[in-house]
This record gives sequence, structure tokens and C-alpha cells, in this order.
Amino acid sequence: MTTAPWRDPALPAAVRVDDLLSRMTLQEKTAQLYGVWVGADTDGDGVAPLQREMTSEYDWDELITHGLGQLTRPFGTAPVDPALGAQALARAQRRIAAAGRFGIPALAHEECLAGFTTWRATAYPVPLAWGASFDPALVEEMGAAIGRDLRSVGVHQGLAPVLDVVRDPRWGRVEETIGEDPYLVGTVGTAYVRGLESAGIVSTLKHFAGYASSAGARNLAPARAGVREFADITLPPFEMALREGGARSVMAAYNDTDGVPASADPGLLTELLRERWGFTGTVVADYFGVGFLQTQHRVAGSEAEAAHAALAAGLDVELPTLRCYGTPLVEAVRAGEIPESLIDRAARRVLLQKCELGLLDEDWNPEPAERIDLDSASNRALARRLAEESVVLLDNPDGILPLAPDTRIAVVGPRAADALAMLGCYSFPSHVLTHHPEVPMGIGIPTVLDALRAELPDAKVTFAEGCGVDDPDTGGFEEAVARTAEADVCVAVLGDRAGLFGRGTSGEGCDVTDLRLPGVQADLLDSLVATGVPVVLVLLTGRPYALGRWDGRLGAVVQAFFPGEEGGPAVAGVLSGRVNPSGRLPVSVPRVPGGQPWTYLQPPLGLAGEVSNLDPTPLYPFGHGRSYTAFTWDSDSTGAEIGTDGSYDVSVTVRNTGERAGTEVVQLYLHDPVASVVRPDVRLIGYERLDLDPGEATRVTFRFHADLSSFTDRAGRRVVEPGALELRLAASSTDIRHTTHLTLTGPPRELGPDRHMRCEGRVSRA
Amino acid sequence: MTTAPWRDPALPAAVRVDDLLSRMTLQEKTAQLYGVWVGADTDGDGVAPLQREMTSEYDWDELITHGLGQLTRPFGTAPVDPALGAQALARAQRRIAAAGRFGIPALAHEECLAGFTTWRATAYPVPLAWGASFDPALVEEMGAAIGRDLRSVGVHQGLAPVLDVVRDPRWGRVEETIGEDPYLVGTVGTAYVRGLESAGIVSTLKHFAGYASSAGARNLAPARAGVREFADITLPPFEMALREGGARSVMAAYNDTDGVPASADPGLLTELLRERWGFTGTVVADYFGVGFLQTQHRVAGSEAEAAHAALAAGLDVELPTLRCYGTPLVEAVRAGEIPESLIDRAARRVLLQKCELGLLDEDWNPEPAERIDLDSASNRALARRLAEESVVLLDNPDGILPLAPDTRIAVVGPRAADALAMLGCYSFPSHVLTHHPEVPMGIGIPTVLDALRAELPDAKVTFAEGCGVDDPDTGGFEEAVARTAEADVCVAVLGDRAGLFGRGTSGEGCDVTDLRLPGVQADLLDSLVATGVPVVLVLLTGRPYALGRWDGRLGAVVQAFFPGEEGGPAVAGVLSGRVNPSGRLPVSVPRVPGGQPWTYLQPPLGLAGEVSNLDPTPLYPFGHGRSYTAFTWDSDSTGAEIGTDGSYDVSVTVRNTGERAGTEVVQLYLHDPVASVVRPDVRLIGYERLDLDPGEATRVTFRFHADLSSFTDRAGRRVVEPGALELRLAASSTDIRHTTHLTLTGPPRELGPDRHMRCEGRVSRA
Repeated sequence: MTTAPWRDPALPAAVRVDDLLSRMTLQEKTAQLYGVWVGADTDGDGVAPLQREMTSEYDWDELITHGLGQLTRPFGTAPVDPALGAQALARAQRRIAAAGRFGIPALAHEECLAGFTTWRATAYPVPLAWGASFDPALVEEMGAAIGRDLRSVGVHQGLAPVLDVVRDPRWGRVEETIGEDPYLVGTVGTAYVRGLESAGIVSTLKHFAGYASSAGARNLAPARAGVREFADITLPPFEMALREGGARSVMAAYNDTDGVPASADPGLLTELLRERWGFTGTVVADYFGVGFLQTQHRVAGSEAEAAHAALAAGLDVELPTLRCYGTPLVEAVRAGEIPESLIDRAARRVLLQKCELGLLDEDWNPEPAERIDLDSASNRALARRLAEESVVLLDNPDGILPLAPDTRIAVVGPRAADALAMLGCYSFPSHVLTHHPEVPMGIGIPTVLDALRAELPDAKVTFAEGCGVDDPDTGGFEEAVARTAEADVCVAVLGDRAGLFGRGTSGEGCDVTDLRLPGVQADLLDSLVATGVPVVLVLLTGRPYALGRWDGRLGAVVQAFFPGEEGGPAVAGVLSGRVNPSGRLPVSVPRVPGGQPWTYLQPPLGLAGEVSNLDPTPLYPFGHGRSYTAFTWDSDSTGAEIGTDGSYDVSVTVRNTGERAGTEVVQLYLHDPVASVVRPDVRLIGYERLDLDPGEATRVTFRFHADLSSFTDRAGRRVVEPGALELRLAASSTDIRHTTHLTLTGPPRELGPDRHMRCEGRVSRA
Repeated sequence: MTTAPWRDPALPAAVRVDDLLSRMTLQEKTAQLYGVWVGADTDGDGVAPLQREMTSEYDWDELITHGLGQLTRPFGTAPVDPALGAQALARAQRRIAAAGRFGIPALAHEECLAGFTTWRATAYPVPLAWGASFDPALVEEMGAAIGRDLRSVGVHQGLAPVLDVVRDPRWGRVEETIGEDPYLVGTVGTAYVRGLESAGIVSTLKHFAGYASSAGARNLAPARAGVREFADITLPPFEMALREGGARSVMAAYNDTDGVPASADPGLLTELLRERWGFTGTVVADYFGVGFLQTQHRVAGSEAEAAHAALAAGLDVELPTLRCYGTPLVEAVRAGEIPESLIDRAARRVLLQKCELGLLDEDWNPEPAERIDLDSASNRALARRLAEESVVLLDNPDGILPLAPDTRIAVVGPRAADALAMLGCYSFPSHVLTHHPEVPMGIGIPTVLDALRAELPDAKVTFAEGCGVDDPDTGGFEEAVARTAEADVCVAVLGDRAGLFGRGTSGEGCDVTDLRLPGVQADLLDSLVATGVPVVLVLLTGRPYALGRWDGRLGAVVQAFFPGEEGGPAVAGVLSGRVNPSGRLPVSVPRVPGGQPWTYLQPPLGLAGEVSNLDPTPLYPFGHGRSYTAFTWDSDSTGAEIGTDGSYDVSVTVRNTGERAGTEVVQLYLHDPVASVVRPDVRLIGYERLDLDPGEATRVTFRFHADLSSFTDRAGRRVVEPGALELRLAASSTDIRHTTHLTLTGPPRELGPDRHMRCEGRVSRA
């Protein structure tokens, strides 16, 4: 018996896959194009909405005789011991392989937004906290750790990162994003991709594209954006993560933009993604997204038409389970309504990926790793470091922080003593365990109250919850005020409860109509402030909230974005002074609750001015964050004339002039005073974290290339235009420390996908 | 001496103007391209922001030796007796004509949004009230009356109507719009244009285009909209008003859309407007809009570059006064930086219009009409009719309205006894008289309190203001509650104060961050409701406000949108029952204050659903309005198959089954179940007001043409697609009375500018 070419690991993957495809029936090829949600409970409750409606009935044993493209969330659907789950997955894979003619297993995918979304796995800080860290290197380490854990149990693909750029902070999924600036999202998101892919896991960029632009911030609502906003704000993080991160999968977004659903957009999924950017991996559906073309977007009149529209656009794999890509697709191809070439094109991409992952090899073996520990000590250390780097000290006018070791502290608020306060909606405890109240958390999560008591053993710490996160009861105010009145300082720990589809105040399907603190927490804070005892506000949230009401009335303000299982100690460390805060805002914190959408990327008419009574100036701007030490900035960059294809080095020396070690985040913003289209007043084009001992100085040099000034012109081309530019070295988007004037000379240049996208800092001892 | 060809009225205008242009110097041609704000006070205070910065200094006597394109607001800048003003204008015109070589006067323009914006002129209801009337015929009558008044004093051009389609009700200029549906805006706006133009006045369509889509509803903020939203929602009213109304001028909008400022957009001002739509009139700047290209949009580096960008785009006339089109433009042309052909092109358009208006004729005579009365009895009667038709009865669950004649009524609220409560921001009293507190109003404006006392002489009416419109003082609540407790019914008259640039709660530059009632009015209303005495809420506003907080707790709700000088009697007439309410909502009234932007034109994912916790369903939908009588609807339209170029008659017979005369507004909505792009669930395509005596029945037939189903496809073409459609006869956008199923067969069709745009009802006695 000779080995078939497709089984021969010595042959190129393309040759193997073409041979395999030539042997497969239509149904076998189609079977590679969908997943089945294996762990889903039969009534579809609790994982995603519309599931009942969307899930069709198939006989599993019969189904897998044709093969199977994907297994959906084998670990993320219900609590399962990781080792047992890994064994169960291996058994399922063997069964799938045995059932089909070719012995090909499914590709198993899982959620891993902020850690592997499964029981007993490390819950890292959410992406918005990664953004606050401004530390891609650390995020890459985390990505690698998550990837290793996924791999240890037999998962091949992770549905992360989210590269949506925040366009309206009211959206429930803001916690899943890295922030409101495309450069920050791109660089940090790319780091995550590098980490995940370094472990052999297929990283999935989502949501491609425009999902964050939904009108009114209602989840899945139509996105209002023109082609330039789309090209200059929405797309760049994806382009960077593909080119520099090597992501091998892309998830088509749920939304339509200006009437065209992403999942049925060949301009996006084929012309841009594959033909222009050269992507060769797989495009997968967001869960139920193919069916939504029929039921929600109404651009298809039947399941087969939905399948056709998606396949023709370039969407290869239907997830989470088969509906349109199942029987309707096969029948429509047989009836001649859909060309079989579309099936071949998608199946080829899927099989190439399976080939690359070794799933076509004869020695394929689904046996999981021997030792499975999804919450190892090294994971926890990583989670701690990232949490500590992500806490943002927004204000500390009188230096009340760090707290004195022997102070009397009234800890108050609904987020102080709840472990879930640390976690985002895609953490396993928030996502799934809420449906299994009998199952323990599976990971240790110290609360802020626990951690503060541990951190300040000599302090007298009292606690009163005050109110719930979002219930209207103010009955607990009295006790909270009483505890505060007896204390030297009140630490008010307020914020969100992450949850799915209306079960939380932040998370998927938990959008808000304005940025008031949830429930009666604002009233609680008013009551605490009224005592006259200094109040340190600690926010554990998934989005920014309007804080103008308390401007100048708080002792200090600490913002953490769901900081993960080690978030309690991280926050307590900042309060005690063990940790010198170094986070910077990845999103603006507004003064007033209404007035959205708004982010900092505004041209003059989007800023405060005489033509509207509304002043959208944030209370704390993008990039803002304080430290317990002080820094001086000194730059000798004087500016120059360079070509429209030239570059220029801009440098700054930062010195820690305080008495303790600390971290400054040097940010580089571009100001383009005149352009052929309206441009934001400033935008981030580089940043660097500098850890500095007392007295220490470091020089950081950014090599600015003219490509960084490019934008999409009226004709839709990416261009560099000659003219004046300003490079602004700044401690936040509004705190400018040094301006360098450049003049670009020469002809306008049109750029291709090989353009310079980064302005990385080179750090040297000063 | 022979008459020059350009003076010869027997020659075609084009010949005359070409001859004239050949005789003019560069400076003389350029002088036709700007206006001068004649009445502006020297420090520029109070009329528009940024004026000081934008107004340059020129010597008037020297300036007019070159001629002058326009005179800006001779009547609208300061209070002037109309007859004296007309004489002054005539004098100025004679002087201008005498100063130049060709004896050409300026074209005088004025604001006339809701009546001639000058002292002692009729203040009609604002456009949002026109929308509520659903009565284009009456609006056309009003337009004609306004036009006659403008003409009587020597004005040539009126800067109206506003054809912006509401995209976010928080915008301050919502009061100036006709509503949130492009068909309603187009049909009613076109009627206004017809009226104005019928009097010989140049009507100016504004703001072209996209101004209402400003992000966050902040005035002039960048507009976020894609090309399909722009083509299918923003543009159609302009297209209709040009084609069917014959408007002779278009004002370029302030805003940019997706980075391209309208004032510098040749695709909009030339390719679409002139080349595709065939427009031959003038394009004028919004005030200071040319300069904004430099100072606000930053797409021009100098005044000359701003002039160049605007002229090249097709913007012919700089308003309100010369800045970029003055010396900077002349010098740049002389320096060869701007082609003189651009000057010629614009000057030709201006002079053709002046020729058409008789301003080039030797017998031109600026003498005003002998009898000038800008607030005649017939004007007032018109203002009354339109006001009465525009009042919307939102709710009257227990039939508390009409009020009994001898009832005890506590009239409460800051809008009950203030004449200015009736007027929008572009009324002369709100726009200008606030700067001249010593000058009387100039027109009689009965308040709701006055009118109600007159309307119900036997009632016992008490009054308490309760609070101010937007001040925080609640000191008046007590008295208001006391008056209410003593009464049978409380009429709470709440709402807006119109003003400019932060001086009002509605109006230009008076945007809001959410739709809470201004100031403490919501709290006042809570206090009144708490008395247990039935509260009739009367809203006099410039935008819809969120009323969900009082859902089911009010005796009745009456919504009037700044109903003009006769608004008090109109509202009182509805309260007393003299007027049977017939207005319908031109904008949705939301439940909650936040969650914008939202209008009723939503596809399924923009409506309530399982994927977001937020339910944007309005409390009162677009098209809603109640009557004191009842109607039955009966349709025998059964549906059919028609070609993609076919038409179908859909009919309904409406009978007044109540005991008093009343008006039903039959609305026709289109539902397109499957299309190649995402479409709104329903949209208005026809409507008809039916006045019916008790027992009377009327049959209305709408001829639906397949063109009405057209939309802009992915390639940007306007197409009719084959497939199923539903025609929904309805009493509001959600109150469907009869559905007719159509199937369009045949090939998809691409439509040109000659498409069917209307579905007018033919009314016959049943």
C-alpha cells in the first residue's frame, strides 16, 4: 500500500491539499467549512442570543462521516476539569478522524480574549488594561503563555485579539478593545498575536471590520462610517497584526457599514484582505453571522443565499455550528445555484491550515500534554505584572496616595469585596460560571478589600458595600457614610459587573445610553464626598465613566480596567505605594455622561469651540496617567526639512527627578496643520515605557518616517503629502512637552501595503 | 449712443452676461462673488460666532467702485422699521449702482426660515412644525406669502429652506428641519421652495450637504456617514426641491463628511449638483464657510488657498462678507496661482441670476412697494392655520382633553406665559431682539396662558411659573404644586427657549448631550404629577424630548414645535377642543434621554432585539398623532406582480366614525424584505391629509411606481431590484392598517435623475 500524496509530509502543503480535494466529495469538502458547537447544552441557553433559532438539528454520528471543519468551544461552554476536558477532546477528535474517509480531525477553537476562557485558567487583565499598560512586550509574553496553555489541551485556534478601535465608549464591548487609538490598538494587538502564534496557535483577528462604529453604541447596530474613517481608523490595526504579527485567521464582523454587511463584503474579505494585503489564512464567521445575513441584515432571502453571499465574499468557515453551510449549501451547489468552485476555494484554505497544523499527517496524535496547569505560578506572575502596569492614577492632587501604613480606612462600594469585579465578560467566571452557581471559581481572585488588608496590615480597615452595582436600593448608604465618617480616608471601590446580553453593566450586549456610573453608585459617591473625609475613588470598570461631577472634590482617583485575577493586589499595591502607578489612559475619561460618540481623534471642529455650546473636552485625556515620582523631559530635536520619503530622528531625555523608581510613558503625537482632507488635530504615532530609578535618565529616539504622516485622500489612496508637520513629544495627548517642526518636501507619494507603520523608540542610557 | 449688448433685454441672458464679462476687470468680476454684511455692528457682536476673526477691514466707498455681489441681511441684523429699511436698502442699491462702471446693484439676501427674519414680520411656525402638519399645500402658501413680503422691501434671495434630514435630535438646529424622514423633508421643503420662488424670490437650499449628521450632534462637528447614507437619506430632499421646486440657489454646508468639507467638494458642488442634476443657479457659502476651510477644516493653508478650494469645488459666492474672495483671491489670480477661469465661471452664474432678476436692465428700479405690511391679517391667518395643523396630540388616554369649559385649570411652567416660547432661533425676536431689550417685539404673540383664558372664559385659570427654562432654581415648585392641588387639571407648559450659540436650549449652537427636558423642568413635572391632579403636558420645543419617565402617568400630552406667533391660540384651541388635533410626529419621541443617534429609519439590527440590552423603541413613533374623533380604514388592494419599471395603485377608504370633524393623515410606508444592501425596515413613501366630517368617507389612491423602491447599491448606483415588497398603509410608522404585497419582476434597473420620486395620493369621495 502506497501513501497517498496528501498524506506525504515531504510534499508541499499546496500539493497535498490539492490531491486531497480531488478525492473529496462535495459533501466532504463542505463539511470542512463549518464547526459544531460540541459543548453547547441542548436548549442553547446562556451562551449567545438567537442560538435556539439558529441551530439546526443534525445527527452527530452521521454528520461526522463527512468530516468536520471545526469543534466549537470544547472548553468554554461548561465547566470542565482541564485535564479531563483535554482527554475528552482527544477522544472526540479520534472519533471524528475515524468516522471519515480521510481520518482528518477537526480544528478545535476557543475564546482567549484575556486568557483561555475555561475553568481554572488564568484570568488576565482585559485588553483595555493592556492598552493602559502601553507595554506590548509584556502583552506578547502573555499571548505566548495563553497560547501554550491552549496548545497543552489540544486547542488549535484562539478567537482573539479584538482589534476594534473604540469609537463610542458606551458600547458594551469596549472592555474587549485596546483603546480608542488605532496605533495603540495595532501595536499592542500585534504583540498579542505574536505571542499566541509563537505557541503554534492560530490567532484570529476580530472583528473585521467596523463593529465598534455601531450607531448609538448598540451592539450590532449598523455602523456609520465613511471610507476614510474606515481606512484610517478601523483597518490599520488589522493590517499591522497580519503583516507584523502573522495572524492566520480573521473573523468577519457582525455589523454592516453603510449598508454592506462585513460577512458579505467581497471588497473587504477578498479584495482588501487577500488581494491587497496578501492574507492566505482562513476567514471565519462570527457566531451565527452567516445566518444573520438572512435574518438580521436581510441581504439574503434564504439560508442558501446567505451561504452563497458569505462564501462569495470570502468567508470560509461558518461558526459556531452549521446552519447555512450545511444542507442548504450542499443542496444549492447540487442544484447549480452556487458554483462548486466557491466550496473548493474555502475548503482549500481550511485544509491548508490543517495541513500546516499537522492535522493531515499520519502521525497526528491528539494526546494532550502530560502536565496541564492553566493557572501556573508563572501565569499568575504575568497577570500580576500586567495588572500592576495597567492601573492608572488619574488624580492625586494633595498626595493622599500612597496611603499611610497605619491609617483608618473605610473601604466602601459594591466592587470592593467581589472577586468578579476583577473580570471582564469573556472571562470564564463571568461568561459561563454564572450559569453554574454550584461550581467554585476555580482560580484565586483576591478582592481589593482582601488585598488592601494584606498590603497594609497596620491599617484599620472597615468595609461597607453601600449599594449594589446596578440595583436602585440606597439602604446601605447610611452604613457606608458612617464607616467613612469614622475613618481618615475612604476608599470607594465602584464600577461595573461584566456579563453577557444585559446581565452585566459592561460586556457583550451590555451597552449603555450614557456614561453615568451604573445604578446608584454616583449617589453613593456623593454621600461619601459629603462627609468631608477624603475619598479615594477606585474604579474597576470596562469602560470610562463621566467623572466631571466630582472634579476637584476627590482625594484621588484610580482607574483600573478589569485587571484580572491579580488585579486586587495590583490596585492595593498602588494604594499602598508598593506599586508606583504607570498606566496611561487608552480611552478619554469624559466630564459629562452624554454627548457621544466622541474620542480624542478630532479635527478642530470636533473640539471645543464657538460654534457649539457643547464642550467635549475630556476630564482626563487620552494618554493621561500620574506617577508617585516626577520626571523632566529634555529634547534637542530642532526639526528639519525631509523628503516625502524621508525620515527624521526625534529624541528626548527623560530623567526621574523624584525619590523613588517610576515609569514614564513617552508619547509621540503627529499634528498635521494643513492637508487635503480634514485630519485629527493630533494622533499617536509612537510611545515608549521608560522605567527609571531615582535620578536616572534615559534617552529615547523615535525614527519618524514620512509614511507615518500618510492618510487616505479623497480618491481613496493612501498618500504622504508635502508640507509642514509637528512631532509632539507628550506625556498625554494634551500634555505636550516638546514640539519639533518638520517640513516634508518633494512630490506627494502614494503608498502601498509595504509602508512604514511604526515609529518605535530606541532607548539608550542618557 | 448705442446700448451695449449686455444691457439689451431682448438678447438672451447668456449673451448679455458673456458680453458683460468681457468688459469687466478681474477685480470687477471678483466683486460679484462676495457679499458685504451691511447692517452688522462694528464689533461683530451677537450675530454669528467667529465674526470678529473673519471680518476684514475694507473701505466701503472704494470697495463698491468695483461693484458688489451681495448685500447681507439688510433687514435681519438690527431692528429697523420695514418701510424705512426698504428705503434705506433702495438708497444703498442706488449708491452701489452709481459707484461701479456698469451700474449693477447688489443682490440682497435675507434669512426667512420661518418667516422673514426682520422686525414686525410674521413669525410662522418653525419647519419642524411644518413637518408635523404633513401639509405641503399650506406650506407652499406660506412660502409664497413670505416671498411676497421679501420682495416688497427689495430683497431678492431668501436663505431657506433647511433640507437637512434629522439624524440626531440632540442637534440644536433640529427645530429648523422638517423632520427625520427624507420623503417628508423633500415634499414639504419642495412646497416651501415653490411658494418662495412663485413670488420671484431666489430660494436657497441648505445646508448642502450632510450638516445634520455631525458626530455627537455638536454643531459643525465632522459628519459621520457613508456614501449610501448620504445618497439615500441626505441628498433626496435637495434633488426633489431642485427638480420640482425650481430652487435657484444652494448653500454649501459648513461640515465635512468623512473628511471632505462640503465647501471644498467638487464631487458634490459640481459633479453631482450641476453635471448630474443639471443645476444652473448659484452656490453660496454658509456664513464664514469659505474661511473655515483654512481656520477650521485646515484643508487650506491661506485665505487664497481657501478661496481656490471653494471656487474650484463650485462655490460661487462668499458670504456673509468678503474675506477670502476679496484681496487674497484677486492677488492669487494675478500671481497666476488661481486660474481666472474659475472667477469667470462663478461670476457668470452670479450675473446670469442678476440678469434673470432684472438687475442688469436699464429700467431697474429699487423702489420698494408702496404699502409694506410684513404681518398682514392674511399672514396671521396662514400662521394660525399652520400652527393649528401642526399641534400633535401624543396621548389622551382618558379623554381629559378637550378640557371642560368651566373647569379649574392650573397653568404651570416656564413656557406658559412667555411669548418667546412660540418662536424658534431664526425668528427675529430670538435671533436679534435679545440684543435690543429696549425694542418692543413688533408682533403680537399671545401666550398659551393668554390664549387659554380667551378660549375658555368660564374656566378658573391660575398660573404659576414653577421654574425657569434652564436655571437650577426650584424655589417656584411649591407655588406651582399649590396651584395644581387646588385645580381640576394642571396644564404644564414646558419646553425650550430658542437662542443662538449657547443662549438658548434649542437653536443654532445650542446642542444638548441628551434628551432630558432642560433645567429642572423634569423635576417640576414630577412634582405636579405627584399631586394626583391630572396633568396635561404641553411641550413647546425645538426638538423631541424623552418622555418615558412619565409614561402612563400623565392626563394628556400635547407636542407643539415652536408654533409661531399664532401658536398660543393654536395650542389653546386644541386644549379647548375648538381645534381637533391633526399633527403627526415628524421625529420620534424617545423613551430615555440617551442612546443617540437614532431615528426611525432602522434596519432590524437598529431596532430592539436580543443582541443589545438597549431598546431604542420610541415612546411615540414617527408619524404618530391622535385625534378627538375616530377613523376606520378599509382597503381592497390585494397586491400584484409588476415589472421593475411598473406601477401599482394602492387605495384606502377612510371614514370618520366619530362625532366631530377631524383629519386623518394616511401614511404609506415601504418594507423591502430582501435587498442587496441593508435597508431600513420601513420608510415613508407617501402621505395624504384627509379632512373628514362626521360620517364622511374618502378614498385615497397612491400610485406606487417601482422607482420608489430604489436605493443606492454597493457600486453607488441607484437601482430598482426585483423581488417582494410590502406597501403598508399606516397611521404611523408602527401603526399599520393594511399591507399590500407586491412582487417586482424583470431585470434590475439603474435609475437616472429623471426617476419617479413621489407617490402622491389622489383623493376622491368614497
